[in-house]
Amino acid sequence: MLPGGRLALIALSGLPVVRPKDDLAALIVSALTATGEALAPGDVLVVTSKLVSRAEDRFVDLSRVTPTPEGRAIARQVDKDPRLVTLILQESTHISRKAKGALIVQSRLGAVCANAGIDQSNAAPVDAAPGSGPWVLLLPRAPDASAARLREALFQRTGVRPGVVLSDSFGRPFRTGTVGVALGLAGLPAVLDQRGSLDLFGRPLEHTITALADQIAAAGDLVAGQAAEGRGVVLVRGLELPAEDGVSTDLLRAPETDLYR
Amino acid sequence: MLPGGRLALIALSGLPVVRPKDDLAALIVSALTATGEALAPGDVLVVTSKLVSRAEDRFVDLSRVTPTPEGRAIARQVDKDPRLVTLILQESTHISRKAKGALIVQSRLGAVCANAGIDQSNAAPVDAAPGSGPWVLLLPRAPDASAARLREALFQRTGVRPGVVLSDSFGRPFRTGTVGVALGLAGLPAVLDQRGSLDLFGRPLEHTITALADQIAAAGDLVAGQAAEGRGVVLVRGLELPAEDGVSTDLLRAPETDLYR
Repeated sequence: MLPGGRLALIALSGLPVVRPKDDLAALIVSALTATGEALAPGDVLVVTSKLVSRAEDRFVDLSRVTPTPEGRAIARQVDKDPRLVTLILQESTHISRKAKGALIVQSRLGAVCANAGIDQSNAAPVDAAPGSGPWVLLLPRAPDASAARLREALFQRTGVRPGVVLSDSFGRPFRTGTVGVALGLAGLPAVLDQRGSLDLFGRPLEHTITALADQIAAAGDLVAGQAAEGRGVVLVRGLELPAEDGVSTDLLRAPETDLYR
Repeated sequence: MLPGGRLALIALSGLPVVRPKDDLAALIVSALTATGEALAPGDVLVVTSKLVSRAEDRFVDLSRVTPTPEGRAIARQVDKDPRLVTLILQESTHISRKAKGALIVQSRLGAVCANAGIDQSNAAPVDAAPGSGPWVLLLPRAPDASAARLREALFQRTGVRPGVVLSDSFGRPFRTGTVGVALGLAGLPAVLDQRGSLDLFGRPLEHTITALADQIAAAGDLVAGQAAEGRGVVLVRGLELPAEDGVSTDLLRAPETDLYR
Protein backbone atom coordinates (compact mmCIF):
# COMPACT_ATOMS: atom_id res chain seq x y z
CA MET A 1 0.00 0.00 0.00
CA LEU A 2 2.95 2.31 0.48
CA PRO A 3 5.44 1.53 -2.27
CA GLY A 4 7.74 4.35 -1.24
CA GLY A 5 7.58 3.31 2.40
CA ARG A 6 7.75 6.93 3.52
CA LEU A 7 5.06 8.90 5.22
CA ALA A 8 5.17 12.55 6.28
CA LEU A 9 2.89 13.98 8.95
CA ILE A 10 2.77 17.76 9.06
CA ALA A 11 0.80 19.71 11.67
CA LEU A 12 -0.55 22.86 10.06
CA SER A 13 0.39 26.17 11.64
CA GLY A 14 -1.68 29.26 12.05
CA LEU A 15 -5.15 27.88 12.56
CA PRO A 16 -7.23 30.26 14.66
CA VAL A 17 -9.71 29.13 17.30
CA VAL A 18 -12.66 28.14 15.12
CA ARG A 19 -15.99 29.96 15.54
CA PRO A 20 -19.49 28.96 14.44
CA LYS A 21 -20.03 29.43 10.70
CA ASP A 22 -16.30 29.75 10.01
CA ASP A 23 -15.34 28.41 6.59
CA LEU A 24 -13.09 25.55 7.65
CA ALA A 25 -11.83 24.94 4.11
CA ALA A 26 -10.70 28.55 3.83
CA LEU A 27 -8.96 28.36 7.22
CA ILE A 28 -7.21 25.13 6.23
CA VAL A 29 -6.03 26.52 2.90
CA SER A 30 -4.58 29.56 4.71
CA ALA A 31 -2.94 27.29 7.26
CA LEU A 32 -1.43 25.15 4.49
CA THR A 33 0.09 28.29 3.01
CA ALA A 34 1.33 29.45 6.42
CA THR A 35 2.97 26.03 6.81
CA GLY A 36 4.61 26.28 3.38
CA GLU A 37 2.56 23.44 1.93
CA ALA A 38 -0.02 22.97 -0.81
CA LEU A 39 -2.39 20.05 -1.23
CA ALA A 40 -1.21 17.35 -3.62
CA PRO A 41 -3.10 14.34 -5.00
CA GLY A 42 -3.05 11.48 -2.50
CA ASP A 43 -2.86 13.75 0.55
CA VAL A 44 -5.04 13.00 3.54
CA LEU A 45 -6.01 15.62 6.12
CA VAL A 46 -6.70 14.56 9.69
CA VAL A 47 -8.98 17.18 11.18
CA THR A 48 -9.83 17.16 14.89
CA SER A 49 -13.59 16.73 14.98
CA LYS A 50 -13.74 19.44 17.62
CA LEU A 51 -12.89 22.03 14.95
CA VAL A 52 -15.83 20.81 12.89
CA SER A 53 -18.11 20.84 15.95
CA ARG A 54 -17.10 24.44 16.63
CA ALA A 55 -17.72 25.47 13.01
CA GLU A 56 -21.09 23.71 13.09
CA ASP A 57 -22.02 25.49 16.34
CA ARG A 58 -22.51 22.31 18.35
CA PHE A 59 -22.03 24.24 21.60
CA VAL A 60 -24.54 23.66 24.37
CA ASP A 61 -24.87 25.86 27.46
CA LEU A 62 -25.52 23.38 30.26
CA SER A 63 -27.31 26.03 32.30
CA ARG A 64 -30.09 25.84 29.69
CA VAL A 65 -30.48 22.06 29.87
CA THR A 66 -33.30 20.77 32.08
CA PRO A 67 -32.33 17.40 33.53
CA THR A 68 -34.74 14.56 32.90
CA PRO A 69 -35.66 12.16 35.71
CA GLU A 70 -33.55 9.44 34.03
CA GLY A 71 -30.67 11.90 33.64
CA ARG A 72 -30.87 12.73 37.36
CA ALA A 73 -30.99 9.09 38.39
CA ILE A 74 -28.00 8.06 36.29
CA ALA A 75 -26.09 11.20 37.27
CA ARG A 76 -26.30 10.09 40.89
CA GLN A 77 -24.92 6.66 39.98
CA VAL A 78 -21.99 7.98 37.93
CA ASP A 79 -21.39 11.15 39.96
CA LYS A 80 -21.70 13.54 37.04
CA ASP A 81 -23.68 16.74 36.36
CA PRO A 82 -27.33 15.70 35.73
CA ARG A 83 -27.57 18.23 32.88
CA LEU A 84 -24.53 16.66 31.19
CA VAL A 85 -25.91 13.17 31.73
CA THR A 86 -29.24 14.24 30.23
CA LEU A 87 -27.40 15.43 27.12
CA ILE A 88 -25.32 12.24 26.96
CA LEU A 89 -28.51 10.17 27.01
CA GLN A 90 -30.02 12.32 24.25
CA GLU A 91 -26.92 11.72 22.15
CA SER A 92 -26.83 7.97 22.63
CA THR A 93 -28.82 4.85 21.86
CA HIS A 94 -27.56 2.46 24.52
CA ILE A 95 -25.63 2.52 27.79
CA SER A 96 -22.66 0.16 27.61
CA ARG A 97 -21.25 0.57 31.14
CA LYS A 98 -21.71 2.93 34.03
CA ALA A 99 -19.63 3.36 37.15
CA LYS A 100 -18.58 6.17 39.42
CA GLY A 101 -17.06 8.80 37.12
CA ALA A 102 -17.65 6.79 33.93
CA LEU A 103 -20.57 6.65 31.52
CA ILE A 104 -19.77 4.63 28.40
CA VAL A 105 -22.48 4.65 25.74
CA GLN A 106 -23.12 3.79 22.15
CA SER A 107 -23.49 7.23 20.65
CA ARG A 108 -26.19 7.89 18.07
CA LEU A 109 -23.35 7.75 15.50
CA GLY A 110 -22.78 4.10 16.45
CA ALA A 111 -19.39 4.38 18.13
CA VAL A 112 -19.04 3.22 21.72
CA CYS A 113 -17.31 5.91 23.76
CA ALA A 114 -17.34 7.82 27.03
CA ASN A 115 -19.96 10.55 27.46
CA ALA A 116 -21.23 10.18 23.86
CA GLY A 117 -18.14 12.11 22.82
CA ILE A 118 -19.38 15.28 24.49
CA ASP A 119 -16.40 17.45 25.27
CA GLN A 120 -15.89 19.67 28.28
CA SER A 121 -12.39 20.94 27.42
CA ASN A 122 -11.96 23.77 24.93
CA ALA A 123 -15.73 23.65 24.73
CA ALA A 124 -16.81 27.28 25.14
CA PRO A 125 -17.58 29.60 22.22
CA VAL A 126 -15.00 32.36 21.85
CA ASP A 127 -17.64 35.00 22.46
CA ALA A 128 -19.49 33.25 25.27
CA ALA A 129 -21.43 35.80 27.30
CA PRO A 130 -20.03 36.44 30.80
CA GLY A 131 -21.83 34.22 33.29
CA SER A 132 -23.02 31.80 30.62
CA GLY A 133 -22.16 28.13 30.65
CA PRO A 134 -20.63 25.81 31.66
CA TRP A 135 -20.38 24.99 27.96
CA VAL A 136 -19.95 21.63 26.33
CA LEU A 137 -19.41 20.67 22.71
CA LEU A 138 -21.29 17.87 20.96
CA LEU A 139 -19.84 15.73 18.18
CA PRO A 140 -20.62 16.83 14.62
CA ARG A 141 -24.16 15.87 13.62
CA ALA A 142 -23.07 13.67 10.68
CA PRO A 143 -19.27 13.35 10.57
CA ASP A 144 -19.03 11.54 7.22
CA ALA A 145 -21.15 14.22 5.58
CA SER A 146 -19.05 16.95 7.23
CA ALA A 147 -15.89 15.26 5.95
CA ALA A 148 -17.33 15.00 2.43
CA ARG A 149 -18.38 18.67 2.44
CA LEU A 150 -14.94 19.73 3.62
CA ARG A 151 -13.32 17.59 0.92
CA GLU A 152 -15.45 19.22 -1.78
CA ALA A 153 -14.87 22.73 -0.41
CA LEU A 154 -11.12 22.06 -0.43
CA PHE A 155 -11.40 20.86 -4.04
CA GLN A 156 -13.21 24.07 -5.00
CA ARG A 157 -10.36 26.11 -3.54
CA THR A 158 -7.35 24.01 -4.53
CA GLY A 159 -8.30 21.69 -7.38
CA VAL A 160 -7.26 18.72 -5.22
CA ARG A 161 -9.65 16.38 -3.40
CA PRO A 162 -7.76 15.17 -0.32
CA GLY A 163 -8.87 12.30 1.82
CA VAL A 164 -10.42 13.70 5.01
CA VAL A 165 -10.49 11.97 8.40
CA LEU A 166 -12.37 13.65 11.25
CA SER A 167 -10.67 12.39 14.39
CA ASP A 168 -11.47 12.15 18.04
CA SER A 169 -9.58 10.69 21.02
CA PHE A 170 -11.25 7.73 22.70
CA GLY A 171 -10.35 5.74 25.76
CA ARG A 172 -10.41 1.94 25.45
CA PRO A 173 -11.11 -1.19 27.41
CA PHE A 174 -8.03 -2.97 28.78
CA ARG A 175 -5.51 -0.24 27.94
CA THR A 176 -4.61 3.09 29.49
CA GLY A 177 -4.78 6.38 27.67
CA THR A 178 -6.63 7.71 24.69
CA VAL A 179 -5.91 7.03 21.03
CA GLY A 180 -7.10 8.82 17.93
CA VAL A 181 -10.01 7.22 16.08
CA ALA A 182 -11.81 8.14 12.87
CA LEU A 183 -15.22 9.60 13.61
CA GLY A 184 -15.91 10.55 10.02
CA LEU A 185 -14.16 10.19 6.71
CA ALA A 186 -14.37 10.93 3.02
CA GLY A 187 -12.30 9.94 0.02
CA LEU A 188 -10.49 6.96 1.48
CA PRO A 189 -11.28 3.45 2.69
CA ALA A 190 -12.09 3.05 6.39
CA VAL A 191 -10.50 -0.39 6.62
CA LEU A 192 -8.05 -2.36 4.50
CA ASP A 193 -9.24 -5.86 3.84
CA GLN A 194 -6.43 -8.24 2.98
CA ARG A 195 -8.56 -11.37 2.99
CA GLY A 196 -7.21 -13.64 0.32
CA SER A 197 -3.64 -12.34 0.68
CA LEU A 198 -0.98 -14.91 1.51
CA ASP A 199 1.86 -14.68 3.98
CA LEU A 200 5.52 -15.30 3.17
CA PHE A 201 4.90 -19.03 3.27
CA GLY A 202 1.76 -19.07 1.18
CA ARG A 203 -0.57 -19.39 4.17
CA PRO A 204 -3.62 -17.10 4.23
CA LEU A 205 -3.01 -14.04 6.39
CA GLU A 206 -4.55 -14.11 9.81
CA HIS A 207 -5.20 -10.49 10.75
CA THR A 208 -6.80 -9.58 7.51
CA ILE A 209 -8.65 -6.39 8.25
CA THR A 210 -6.71 -3.38 9.48
CA ALA A 211 -8.42 -0.29 10.81
CA LEU A 212 -6.79 2.06 8.33
CA ALA A 213 -8.65 5.26 9.14
CA ASP A 214 -8.28 4.73 12.89
CA GLN A 215 -4.55 4.29 12.44
CA ILE A 216 -4.40 7.46 10.36
CA ALA A 217 -6.28 9.26 13.15
CA ALA A 218 -3.87 7.85 15.76
CA ALA A 219 -0.88 8.98 13.72
CA GLY A 220 -2.46 12.41 13.38
CA ASP A 221 -3.03 12.57 17.12
CA LEU A 222 0.67 11.88 17.71
CA VAL A 223 1.44 15.12 15.94
CA ALA A 224 -1.55 17.19 16.94
CA GLY A 225 -1.60 16.72 20.70
CA GLN A 226 -4.68 17.98 22.42
CA ALA A 227 -4.03 21.24 24.17
CA ALA A 228 -2.97 23.33 21.21
CA GLU A 229 -5.99 23.84 19.06
CA GLY A 230 -3.67 25.39 16.46
CA ARG A 231 -2.49 21.82 15.84
CA GLY A 232 -5.95 20.57 14.97
CA VAL A 233 -5.19 19.72 11.35
CA VAL A 234 -2.46 17.33 10.23
CA LEU A 235 -1.47 16.71 6.63
CA VAL A 236 -0.56 13.08 5.91
CA ARG A 237 1.45 12.63 2.74
CA GLY A 238 2.69 9.38 1.24
CA LEU A 239 -0.15 6.92 1.87
CA GLU A 240 -0.95 5.02 -1.28
CA LEU A 241 -4.53 4.02 -0.79
CA PRO A 242 -6.95 2.08 -2.93
CA ALA A 243 -9.48 4.37 -4.62
CA GLU A 244 -12.37 3.31 -2.42
CA ASP A 245 -14.75 5.49 -0.51
CA GLY A 246 -15.36 4.17 2.97
CA VAL A 247 -17.76 5.32 5.64
CA SER A 248 -17.04 5.58 9.33
CA THR A 249 -19.56 2.85 10.16
CA ASP A 250 -17.24 0.38 8.38
CA LEU A 251 -15.14 0.79 11.53
CA LEU A 252 -17.92 -0.33 13.86
CA ARG A 253 -18.31 -3.95 14.83
CA ALA A 254 -21.67 -5.51 14.21
CA PRO A 255 -23.19 -6.15 17.67
CA GLU A 256 -23.22 -9.93 16.98
CA THR A 257 -19.42 -9.97 16.58
CA ASP A 258 -18.85 -7.82 19.66
CA LEU A 259 -18.12 -9.81 22.79
CA TYR A 260 -17.90 -6.71 24.99
CA ARG A 261 -20.72 -4.33 24.05
CA MET B 1 5.78 17.75 22.30
CA LEU B 2 6.54 18.26 18.65
CA PRO B 3 7.75 21.82 18.25
CA GLY B 4 8.47 21.36 14.58
CA GLY B 5 5.13 19.71 13.98
CA ARG B 6 6.64 17.36 11.42
CA LEU B 7 7.04 13.64 11.69
CA ALA B 8 8.62 11.28 9.18
CA LEU B 9 7.89 7.56 9.10
CA ILE B 10 10.29 5.51 7.03
CA ALA B 11 9.90 1.76 6.45
CA LEU B 12 13.34 0.19 6.26
CA SER B 13 14.22 -1.75 3.12
CA GLY B 14 16.23 -4.88 2.78
CA LEU B 15 15.38 -6.75 5.96
CA PRO B 16 15.66 -10.51 5.41
CA VAL B 17 13.28 -13.05 6.92
CA VAL B 18 14.64 -13.24 10.47
CA ARG B 19 15.95 -16.57 11.77
CA PRO B 20 16.59 -17.76 15.31
CA LYS B 21 19.75 -16.25 16.82
CA ASP B 22 19.98 -13.57 14.12
CA ASP B 23 21.49 -10.34 15.40
CA LEU B 24 18.53 -8.03 14.97
CA ALA B 25 20.59 -4.89 15.66
CA ALA B 26 23.03 -5.82 12.86
CA LEU B 27 20.16 -6.49 10.46
CA ILE B 28 18.54 -3.16 11.33
CA VAL B 29 21.77 -1.21 10.89
CA SER B 30 22.24 -2.81 7.45
CA ALA B 31 18.63 -2.03 6.58
CA LEU B 32 19.08 1.60 7.66
CA THR B 33 22.05 1.84 5.31
CA ALA B 34 20.11 0.16 2.49
CA THR B 35 17.35 2.74 3.06
CA GLY B 36 19.84 5.60 2.94
CA GLU B 37 19.33 6.51 6.60
CA ALA B 38 21.40 6.60 9.77
CA LEU B 39 20.10 6.75 13.33
CA ALA B 40 19.96 10.23 14.83
CA PRO B 41 19.26 11.29 18.41
CA GLY B 42 15.53 11.35 19.09
CA ASP B 43 14.72 8.63 16.56
CA VAL B 44 12.29 5.89 17.51
CA LEU B 45 12.22 2.47 15.83
CA VAL B 46 8.96 0.56 15.63
CA VAL B 47 9.88 -3.10 15.32
CA THR B 48 7.22 -5.72 14.61
CA SER B 49 7.37 -8.02 17.63
CA LYS B 50 7.20 -10.98 15.24
CA LEU B 51 10.79 -10.21 14.13
CA VAL B 52 11.90 -10.38 17.75
CA SER B 53 9.96 -13.60 18.32
CA ARG B 54 11.69 -15.14 15.29
CA ALA B 55 15.12 -14.03 16.48
CA GLU B 56 14.34 -15.40 19.96
CA ASP B 57 13.22 -18.72 18.46
CA ARG B 58 9.71 -18.58 19.88
CA PHE B 59 8.50 -21.06 17.25
CA VAL B 60 6.38 -23.98 18.42
CA ASP B 61 5.57 -27.03 16.31
CA LEU B 62 1.95 -27.78 17.18
CA SER B 63 2.41 -31.42 16.27
CA ARG B 64 4.58 -31.70 19.39
CA VAL B 65 2.03 -30.15 21.74
CA THR B 66 -0.09 -32.58 23.75
CA PRO B 67 -3.50 -31.06 24.40
CA THR B 68 -4.58 -30.86 28.03
CA PRO B 69 -8.12 -31.82 29.03
CA GLU B 70 -8.94 -28.13 29.62
CA GLY B 71 -7.42 -27.27 26.22
CA ARG B 72 -9.62 -29.89 24.55
CA ALA B 73 -12.75 -28.72 26.32
CA ILE B 74 -12.26 -25.06 25.45
CA ALA B 75 -11.17 -25.94 21.91
CA ARG B 76 -14.57 -27.54 21.38
CA GLN B 77 -16.32 -24.42 22.60
CA VAL B 78 -14.32 -22.02 20.44
CA ASP B 79 -13.83 -24.35 17.46
CA LYS B 80 -10.04 -24.13 17.41
CA ASP B 81 -7.19 -26.64 17.33
CA PRO B 82 -6.91 -28.16 20.87
CA ARG B 83 -3.11 -27.99 20.66
CA LEU B 84 -3.28 -24.27 19.89
CA VAL B 85 -5.78 -23.71 22.69
CA THR B 86 -3.52 -25.59 25.11
CA LEU B 87 -0.67 -23.25 24.20
CA ILE B 88 -2.93 -20.19 24.51
CA LEU B 89 -3.89 -21.25 28.02
CA GLN B 90 -0.23 -21.77 28.94
CA GLU B 91 0.55 -18.26 27.73
CA SER B 92 -2.30 -16.58 29.59
CA THR B 93 -3.52 -15.88 33.10
CA HIS B 94 -7.23 -15.33 32.56
CA ILE B 95 -9.87 -15.94 29.90
CA SER B 96 -11.68 -12.71 29.09
CA ARG B 97 -14.22 -13.98 26.51
CA LYS B 98 -14.76 -17.11 24.49
CA ALA B 99 -17.08 -17.70 21.57
CA LYS B 100 -17.08 -19.70 18.37
CA GLY B 101 -13.83 -18.73 16.60
CA ALA B 102 -12.70 -16.32 19.33
CA LEU B 103 -10.61 -16.80 22.46
CA ILE B 104 -9.73 -13.51 24.14
CA VAL B 105 -7.38 -13.80 27.10
CA GLN B 106 -5.19 -11.78 29.36
CA SER B 107 -1.76 -12.90 28.26
CA ARG B 108 0.93 -13.57 30.83
CA LEU B 109 2.38 -10.19 29.73
CA GLY B 110 -0.79 -8.52 31.00
CA ALA B 111 -2.31 -7.38 27.72
CA VAL B 112 -5.79 -8.58 26.81
CA CYS B 113 -5.76 -9.94 23.27
CA ALA B 114 -6.93 -12.75 21.03
CA ASN B 115 -5.11 -16.08 21.30
CA ALA B 116 -2.49 -14.73 23.75
CA GLY B 117 -0.88 -13.08 20.73
CA ILE B 118 0.12 -16.44 19.28
CA ASP B 119 0.57 -16.01 15.56
CA GLN B 120 -0.28 -18.50 12.84
CA SER B 121 0.73 -16.37 9.82
CA ASN B 122 4.38 -16.11 8.83
CA ALA B 123 4.95 -18.40 11.76
CA ALA B 124 7.19 -21.16 10.38
CA PRO B 125 10.97 -21.19 10.71
CA VAL B 126 12.69 -20.67 7.36
CA ASP B 127 14.33 -24.08 7.61
CA ALA B 128 11.33 -26.00 8.95
CA ALA B 129 11.74 -29.71 8.21
CA PRO B 130 9.35 -31.04 5.56
CA GLY B 131 6.31 -32.52 7.23
CA SER B 132 6.87 -30.58 10.46
CA GLY B 133 4.33 -28.18 11.87
CA PRO B 134 1.88 -26.60 11.68
CA TRP B 135 4.04 -23.93 13.30
CA VAL B 136 2.99 -21.05 15.46
CA LEU B 137 4.97 -18.19 16.92
CA LEU B 138 4.69 -17.01 20.53
CA LEU B 139 5.16 -13.42 21.67
CA PRO B 140 8.64 -12.49 22.93
CA ARG B 141 9.22 -13.75 26.45
CA ALA B 142 9.83 -10.29 27.96
CA PRO B 143 9.19 -7.59 25.36
CA ASP B 144 10.45 -4.63 27.41
CA ALA B 145 13.72 -6.46 28.08
CA SER B 146 14.00 -7.38 24.39
CA ALA B 147 13.42 -3.73 23.44
CA ALA B 148 16.05 -2.57 25.94
CA ARG B 149 18.60 -5.10 24.66
CA LEU B 150 17.96 -4.04 21.07
CA ARG B 151 18.35 -0.38 22.06
CA GLU B 152 21.71 -1.11 23.71
CA ALA B 153 22.90 -3.24 20.79
CA LEU B 154 22.00 -0.43 18.39
CA PHE B 155 23.92 2.01 20.60
CA GLN B 156 26.98 -0.27 20.49
CA ARG B 157 26.85 -0.23 16.69
CA THR B 158 25.81 3.35 15.98
CA GLY B 159 26.54 5.49 19.04
CA VAL B 160 22.84 6.46 19.15
CA ARG B 161 20.27 5.06 21.58
CA PRO B 162 16.96 5.18 19.74
CA GLY B 163 13.61 4.69 21.38
CA VAL B 164 12.36 1.18 20.59
CA VAL B 165 8.73 0.09 20.38
CA LEU B 166 7.96 -3.58 19.80
CA SER B 167 4.58 -3.60 18.10
CA ASP B 168 1.81 -6.06 17.51
CA SER B 169 -1.59 -5.75 15.83
CA PHE B 170 -4.57 -6.29 18.13
CA GLY B 171 -8.27 -6.40 17.45
CA ARG B 172 -10.51 -4.37 19.74
CA PRO B 173 -13.94 -4.34 21.32
CA PHE B 174 -16.54 -2.20 19.54
CA ARG B 175 -14.46 -1.44 16.44
CA THR B 176 -13.55 -3.41 13.34
CA GLY B 177 -10.01 -4.16 12.27
CA THR B 178 -6.67 -4.37 13.98
CA VAL B 179 -4.49 -1.51 15.15
CA GLY B 180 -0.86 -1.43 16.16
CA VAL B 181 -0.15 -1.50 19.89
CA ALA B 182 3.07 -1.34 21.89
CA LEU B 183 3.93 -4.72 23.34
CA GLY B 184 7.32 -3.64 24.63
CA LEU B 185 9.30 -0.45 24.72
CA ALA B 186 12.55 1.10 25.81
CA GLY B 187 13.85 4.63 25.92
CA LEU B 188 10.57 6.50 25.71
CA PRO B 189 7.49 7.09 27.83
CA ALA B 190 4.59 4.69 27.32
CA VAL B 191 1.94 7.33 27.98
CA LEU B 192 1.90 11.11 28.02
CA ASP B 193 0.26 12.47 31.11
CA GLN B 194 -1.03 16.00 30.65
CA ARG B 195 -2.81 16.17 33.99
CA GLY B 196 -2.52 19.70 35.23
CA SER B 197 -2.39 21.18 31.72
CA LEU B 198 -5.03 23.75 30.88
CA ASP B 199 -7.09 24.12 27.75
CA LEU B 200 -7.36 27.27 25.67
CA PHE B 201 -9.79 28.71 28.18
CA GLY B 202 -7.86 27.84 31.29
CA ARG B 203 -9.98 24.80 32.14
CA PRO B 204 -8.14 21.59 33.09
CA LEU B 205 -7.84 19.26 30.12
CA GLU B 206 -10.21 16.34 30.07
CA HIS B 207 -8.44 13.57 28.18
CA THR B 208 -5.21 13.90 30.01
CA ILE B 209 -3.43 10.66 29.36
CA THR B 210 -2.64 9.72 25.79
CA ALA B 211 -1.37 6.28 24.84
CA LEU B 212 1.79 7.57 23.23
CA ALA B 213 3.55 4.27 22.51
CA ASP B 214 0.37 2.67 21.17
CA GLN B 215 -0.09 5.61 18.81
CA ILE B 216 3.52 5.26 17.67
CA ALA B 217 2.87 1.56 17.04
CA ALA B 218 -0.30 2.38 15.10
CA ALA B 219 1.56 4.92 12.98
CA GLY B 220 4.27 2.35 12.34
CA ASP B 221 1.66 -0.21 11.34
CA LEU B 222 0.29 2.24 8.76
CA VAL B 223 3.64 2.11 7.01
CA ALA B 224 4.63 -1.46 7.70
CA GLY B 225 1.53 -3.36 6.64
CA GLN B 226 1.47 -7.01 7.60
CA ALA B 227 2.22 -9.22 4.62
CA ALA B 228 5.65 -7.90 3.74
CA GLU B 229 7.97 -8.91 6.52
CA GLY B 230 10.60 -6.75 4.85
CA ARG B 231 8.61 -3.81 6.21
CA GLY B 232 8.90 -4.96 9.80
CA VAL B 233 10.92 -1.97 11.03
CA VAL B 234 9.82 1.64 10.74
CA LEU B 235 11.96 4.62 11.65
CA VAL B 236 9.98 7.45 13.28
CA ARG B 237 11.76 10.78 13.18
CA GLY B 238 10.60 14.06 14.64
CA LEU B 239 8.92 13.09 17.89
CA GLU B 240 10.11 15.30 20.72
CA LEU B 241 9.54 13.20 23.75
CA PRO B 242 10.19 13.78 27.43
CA ALA B 243 13.27 11.91 28.62
CA GLU B 244 11.33 9.31 30.57
CA ASP B 245 11.66 5.58 30.42
CA GLY B 246 8.30 3.89 30.34
CA VAL B 247 7.38 0.24 30.52
CA SER B 248 4.71 -1.49 28.51
CA THR B 249 2.63 -2.24 31.60
CA ASP B 250 2.03 1.53 31.91
CA LEU B 251 -0.33 0.93 28.97
CA LEU B 252 -2.42 -1.63 30.80
CA ARG B 253 -5.46 -0.60 32.79
CA ALA B 254 -5.59 -1.66 36.38
CA PRO B 255 -8.36 -4.27 36.62
CA GLU B 256 -10.34 -2.04 39.00
CA THR B 257 -10.58 0.72 36.36
CA ASP B 258 -11.51 -1.73 33.59
CA LEU B 259 -15.25 -2.01 33.07
CA TYR B 260 -14.88 -4.65 30.36
CA ARG B 261 -12.26 -7.17 31.46
